[in-house]
Amino acid sequence: MSALEPLPALLWRDMVARDLLLDLGQAGDITTDSVVPRDATTVASVVARSPSRVAGLEIACAAFTMLDDDARIVYQAVDGDDVSAGSVLATVEGSARAILSAERTALNLLGHLSGIATATRGVVRQIVGTGARICDTRKTTPGLRSLEKYAVRAGGGSNHRYGLHDAVLIKDNHIAVAGGVSPAIEAVRASVGHMIKIEVEVDTLAQLEEAMTHPVEAILLDNMTLDELAEGVAMIDGQAIAEASGGITPDTARAIAETGVDVLSMGWLTHSAPSVDVALDIELPR
Amino acid sequence: MSALEPLPALLWRDMVARDLLLDLGQAGDITTDSVVPRDATTVASVVARSPSRVAGLEIACAAFTMLDDDARIVYQAVDGDDVSAGSVLATVEGSARAILSAERTALNLLGHLSGIATATRGVVRQIVGTGARICDTRKTTPGLRSLEKYAVRAGGGSNHRYGLHDAVLIKDNHIAVAGGVSPAIEAVRASVGHMIKIEVEVDTLAQLEEAMTHPVEAILLDNMTLDELAEGVAMIDGQAIAEASGGITPDTARAIAETGVDVLSMGWLTHSAPSVDVALDIELPR
Amino acid sequence: MSALEPLPALLWRDMVARDLLLDLGQAGDITTDSVVPRDATTVASVVARSPSRVAGLEIACAAFTMLDDDARIVYQAVDGDDVSAGSVLATVEGSARAILSAERTALNLLGHLSGIATATRGVVRQIVGTGARICDTRKTTPGLRSLEKYAVRAGGGSNHRYGLHDAVLIKDNHIAVAGGVSPAIEAVRASVGHMIKIEVEVDTLAQLEEAMTHPVEAILLDNMTLDELAEGVAMIDGQAIAEASGGITPDTARAIAETGVDVLSMGWLTHSAPSVDVALDIELPR
Amino acid sequence: MSALEPLPALLWRDMVARDLLLDLGQAGDITTDSVVPRDATTVASVVARSPSRVAGLEIACAAFTMLDDDARIVYQAVDGDDVSAGSVLATVEGSARAILSAERTALNLLGHLSGIATATRGVVRQIVGTGARICDTRKTTPGLRSLEKYAVRAGGGSNHRYGLHDAVLIKDNHIAVAGGVSPAIEAVRASVGHMIKIEVEVDTLAQLEEAMTHPVEAILLDNMTLDELAEGVAMIDGQAIAEASGGITPDTARAIAETGVDVLSMGWLTHSAPSVDVALDIELPR
Amino acid sequence: MSALEPLPALLWRDMVARDLLLDLGQAGDITTDSVVPRDATTVASVVARSPSRVAGLEIACAAFTMLDDDARIVYQAVDGDDVSAGSVLATVEGSARAILSAERTALNLLGHLSGIATATRGVVRQIVGTGARICDTRKTTPGLRSLEKYAVRAGGGSNHRYGLHDAVLIKDNHIAVAGGVSPAIEAVRASVGHMIKIEVEVDTLAQLEEAMTHPVEAILLDNMTLDELAEGVAMIDGQAIAEASGGITPDTARAIAETGVDVLSMGWLTHSAPSVDVALDIELPR
Amino acid sequence: MSALEPLPALLWRDMVARDLLLDLGQAGDITTDSVVPRDATTVASVVARSPSRVAGLEIACAAFTMLDDDARIVYQAVDGDDVSAGSVLATVEGSARAILSAERTALNLLGHLSGIATATRGVVRQIVGTGARICDTRKTTPGLRSLEKYAVRAGGGSNHRYGLHDAVLIKDNHIAVAGGVSPAIEAVRASVGHMIKIEVEVDTLAQLEEAMTHPVEAILLDNMTLDELAEGVAMIDGQAIAEASGGITPDTARAIAETGVDVLSMGWLTHSAPSVDVALDIELPR
Repeated sequence: MSALEPLPALLWRDMVARDLLLDLGQAGDITTDSVVPRDATTVASVVARSPSRVAGLEIACAAFTMLDDDARIVYQAVDGDDVSAGSVLATVEGSARAILSAERTALNLLGHLSGIATATRGVVRQIVGTGARICDTRKTTPGLRSLEKYAVRAGGGSNHRYGLHDAVLIKDNHIAVAGGVSPAIEAVRASVGHMIKIEVEVDTLAQLEEAMTHPVEAILLDNMTLDELAEGVAMIDGQAIAEASGGITPDTARAIAETGVDVLSMGWLTHSAPSVDVALDIELPR
Repeated sequence: MSALEPLPALLWRDMVARDLLLDLGQAGDITTDSVVPRDATTVASVVARSPSRVAGLEIACAAFTMLDDDARIVYQAVDGDDVSAGSVLATVEGSARAILSAERTALNLLGHLSGIATATRGVVRQIVGTGARICDTRKTTPGLRSLEKYAVRAGGGSNHRYGLHDAVLIKDNHIAVAGGVSPAIEAVRASVGHMIKIEVEVDTLAQLEEAMTHPVEAILLDNMTLDELAEGVAMIDGQAIAEASGGITPDTARAIAETGVDVLSMGWLTHSAPSVDVALDIELPR
Repeated sequence: MSALEPLPALLWRDMVARDLLLDLGQAGDITTDSVVPRDATTVASVVARSPSRVAGLEIACAAFTMLDDDARIVYQAVDGDDVSAGSVLATVEGSARAILSAERTALNLLGHLSGIATATRGVVRQIVGTGARICDTRKTTPGLRSLEKYAVRAGGGSNHRYGLHDAVLIKDNHIAVAGGVSPAIEAVRASVGHMIKIEVEVDTLAQLEEAMTHPVEAILLDNMTLDELAEGVAMIDGQAIAEASGGITPDTARAIAETGVDVLSMGWLTHSAPSVDVALDIELPR
Repeated sequence: MSALEPLPALLWRDMVARDLLLDLGQAGDITTDSVVPRDATTVASVVARSPSRVAGLEIACAAFTMLDDDARIVYQAVDGDDVSAGSVLATVEGSARAILSAERTALNLLGHLSGIATATRGVVRQIVGTGARICDTRKTTPGLRSLEKYAVRAGGGSNHRYGLHDAVLIKDNHIAVAGGVSPAIEAVRASVGHMIKIEVEVDTLAQLEEAMTHPVEAILLDNMTLDELAEGVAMIDGQAIAEASGGITPDTARAIAETGVDVLSMGWLTHSAPSVDVALDIELPR
Repeated sequence: MSALEPLPALLWRDMVARDLLLDLGQAGDITTDSVVPRDATTVASVVARSPSRVAGLEIACAAFTMLDDDARIVYQAVDGDDVSAGSVLATVEGSARAILSAERTALNLLGHLSGIATATRGVVRQIVGTGARICDTRKTTPGLRSLEKYAVRAGGGSNHRYGLHDAVLIKDNHIAVAGGVSPAIEAVRASVGHMIKIEVEVDTLAQLEEAMTHPVEAILLDNMTLDELAEGVAMIDGQAIAEASGGITPDTARAIAETGVDVLSMGWLTHSAPSVDVALDIELPR
Repeated sequence: MSALEPLPALLWRDMVARDLLLDLGQAGDITTDSVVPRDATTVASVVARSPSRVAGLEIACAAFTMLDDDARIVYQAVDGDDVSAGSVLATVEGSARAILSAERTALNLLGHLSGIATATRGVVRQIVGTGARICDTRKTTPGLRSLEKYAVRAGGGSNHRYGLHDAVLIKDNHIAVAGGVSPAIEAVRASVGHMIKIEVEVDTLAQLEEAMTHPVEAILLDNMTLDELAEGVAMIDGQAIAEASGGITPDTARAIAETGVDVLSMGWLTHSAPSVDVALDIELPR
């Protein structure tokens, strides 16, 4: 399988800085600045407190270098690694003030993204051998879609479209407005560019039958029973990608994957996966 | 109890717009724009699919008016309301395109914030009668602290400090650097303004004893057993606010509250509460 | 043919404001402010000085309302219309100062975008009946890609990918790095999501033959002779979209389209189309 | 002649980054990231495909270092140089991914700005010996005025005002509102600071005669015939700068310059000059 | 005298919003939100507590409408008015919360800008009858140059250049680098556009003599004695604008103006003028 | 006394860059670029022209490195130092163009902030021995609150709240709306978090008496006579911090401090302190 590719810093640097700035406010870290001498240095370890799939490690650690240009970071793990409880993921050496002030910003990012990667990994493992893949949705946390989709990849999942702009998904309301599945597909075909894929969401096998009379790239089988899914897969017969969606949880994923669908898309991965517990163990500053 | 106060739109308008823009990308909603006539209008209902404490309703619905200046929104609920499954929270009447394009942005915000409010409400109810209050931490989702702290208030909780800038929290590492609890408190007292409260985090009752020799406004009893907490409360004896913290979950909250602490601060509320299920029921556009 | 769909103002409002602000600088319009009374009003007509395909009319006119909230604009044309020399496209009634100060910002936008639409229309007409469509590239003017791609649609063309993020285009250098067409396609297949289309750029028919052994959605036939293009189309045989590219101009488009390719992509549309001449005829302010 | 002075990076860095970000979107360069190993490096040459006057070379190459801090760039040309077809302008050595991902952003900038410089150079050469200079206008491409005016200087032209804020240009509508040339000039004189130059646009020699009764720094002779221009120059008689404007093209420039005007201002340079062809030749990454 | 012209809101709206946002922080106005009912309305008067020249009244009052779209403001004064102590400048009717929360932002702006206008007016009055005018410098408060230069105009002064970009001022260091006054002027002449004015700063009458051998638009006589100024004015003899500068205060202005210089430029107006006392008298909210 | 702690560059870097950009405009420093060779270097000294308390030295000097990455700055003073007239505060070695172009931006910042620090120091010295401390208010210059509060600390003062969000100050209008001192305090207590301090502004001793029946952290004695202040201090009797406010000037501070109040808050420090005179002495560039 292809390795996880890091996102260019240009894509997330401003977001980390904005987060750090909101924590510092206009007055800065008034506790640390009062207690820790300006020139004290220290070494700190970023540690996973529970077994996790890592995501966002370099992104999180950028918070340290944003407050101390000269901080040196040594990574013991990379995004996509599985680590056990107690594992050191990285060590940071630099200004004690910078490390203490950036700690929470870094850990919030790392815990959130690793939480998504860990949850994704869990579901991916449950469906091993079925031939299906796990995929995210647009049900992401406000402001964090790009990073959350990256975390899904770190967990071994793959990405659905990034937004309303990069692929077509014809849903129930579009079909209703258009007056049916066929006119909706035809309207879209007539207007989108040739590099755009088209997926149609169907609620019934009758809709599926109509959709399959058109050359579409994917079919979203929405909220169907296992029997319906299996029958849908048979009807699609490899002519399009078959995607199951609708309230899928880690508990229901295996059975759905076994119906033969190509893709399971799960909003749960990004809107409800809990954060994983990560911490910063700091040596006594010198 | 004091009513929940809405945040001025100036505080969140840009964030909602930014989120909407990332969904629209440079090409806009290519599905909706292909299928739905430009001048079609519709009426849509924002609906809770499960029992929830509402938070972020007006903030979420701003996504609709950002795409259709003339959209009319009628609210059937306000933030802080408890609603049953199936409740209509608001109806939106306006451009069918705008409503379909803004749907996901609006629901992601509403589901996330109501998830936090609902989780907070749950814990608040569990400790009813103990005299303690539930409070958040700085373990918030990147980029969303202001809104998440608002959602905690909507759930009946209260807010800890907003960042490193607005209150002092002397933690273990600060104490280690300063060479003890007393020098740390003294260093802070000498430098912060008179409108800043000082809290000291203590891991042991011995540290607590030392801290209580200084006039500090609050003591954070970190990761203590129930017995330690009870003894700590006795030692504090009303001279400072007694706050319990450290991995508190809905399951452990009641027992902790019964030790007599004034405040339970819970990172769980904001880093791991699941989203609640909210949806948009759209009438056939006209 | 599907009508042209307007872009939501949210996508371009800030760009127009930024442009206006750079013209106003810190001192504002020192000429107009010195000469034109503050409460003078006027009526102005936006006029095409040469036959044009209109694009960006509402976007351009937003400059007027940004300086005068109460300006009333009546449109006599919409984007996608063909107009003759001298046609009035819109009339603006409002503050004389606002109209004079916003004039150049508005006309620069309108002239530039209509220039692209007019150029696109010209090429589209030349290939009428061939079954091919005209498409843009990523060779756009810095900062203006979204609007220029909109202008291409206004001219009757369609859009290629918007950036590096929304579709795969495997080019010569990718093939060289991967060690051949096949490994490049396989590497991409293994890593991109199921809603992403894959196109392969081939320089020779031998490369094309190899590419066609894989299920790819589109083939870019780069800088080929008419004979090669015709043979390439035959080899592709409807199994993928056949796209011709490489220095295509209005002069060469017809012959290329007649080779049977599905799409002609032309950088010329956006990097070298001249602006069309638009002007503002202003009545004497009152 | 004075050498061309580079613009401080502070003036354009954000613009280049914004452009790069729009190309990368939220997902990054999905083709390159799938195919090119993370640690592959390469050497690439920025090459002019046709004879050009270079402009924007360092600005364009900043796109490479924005994606790879350690990229090394060696320049074989500087802005303002004339280069022949096939000339290497710069070589870039660094991350193969960074170079491939930044390629289009860099070339779009360089091609656009060099297109303007090359067009300007062409006109400047045509009027050699006449004593006139070529100057731009405010008819620039939206968002690019600062860089386009720099490109005009790179081409040997000079700059008219940058916006409505830094010089006065009294145009026909101002004169109409003021009730004549004289009251317009007097109104302006009474209100602008002593470091602001005043130019008056005149359509007729009668207006010119009136304008010359006031101490103004420049006269714009708008859309006049060659005879009118010559007579206008005689009337101005060195008391103000004589500027010709109105639809001047490379074909008409020489004759206009020979009328004795000091300046020819040409919107064509910035709104309609075609891009020049520049490319990136990339060695096989290692 | 020409009336003061208001700046378009586009030029300052974001600055006022940013200021308001820094005051509201992430939590908003926690005092007002706790005490004042959400739907309470009130009427408040913006009052001058001392005799002042008003500047920034509409700009300041925009803070109220930013928090309450429906606030109604009635102006009893306009920028440039002289008002006595106790004068009501405007009344604001609207949400009591909005008015209380925006109060300080509004008053800080109004007090600062009116302070500059009042100081300018004072100096302008002292030199009445001398024929000289009072002008600002680039010694402005960080971030506020545009508004401060507007306030200087409100006080009856006029503006020097807005920045390094809109006019040439050759200073001592430029002369030193160039190797003398003449080469400095010649270098500038050869490179700047025809709409840019050139001023030369001279420290001695010998330098002035050299400068006057070139056609420059203005001469800055820096830190000269009254006798030197008078002699300088005689030497310039109307061939350029004569500007006196260097530590001029309200106490020294009259004598300097009487030397015959055309302009006195005073950094004091913007870097050291005290704020004027303005207040908000609020009726009991209903 | 605790040393002054520098603000992280992240908090002010963008503000300095914005300021520099407004000075450079779109054309840059047209004087310097014309006269000073591109590769000339120089050494410049930042000098205090009058006795001052330094504030903002590193912040100001960042302007130089923003235009020349390689500029080397050696500091001879740090913020919080008292320096005599003629003292060199720092020397800058680097590009002559960068130094000349950044000069005014740097000096405006340094002069403004040192002006506030110097004014604060003056008042702090006047009240030596009284046990009171000098504190700022929210009457700051628009856009500069964070830096001005830092400058107050550099002058030996301390900070009141940073905005409406980080502490409660119940003022006359809040009391009026609430229907009295007690209900106002109770409303606030019921709604704010446990880390927020509450201060009540009282105009009369009767109000003070009522306020003292509640546990509030601070009392602002507004515009009281010396006798009232002394009596107020006696009534407060150490149960809350006693703060005097209302038009306090350097002339009245000592007597007020002697009444026994803990804090004097002075708007004058930030809205009306004059700038101190700082300059850049530049060696002849090489």
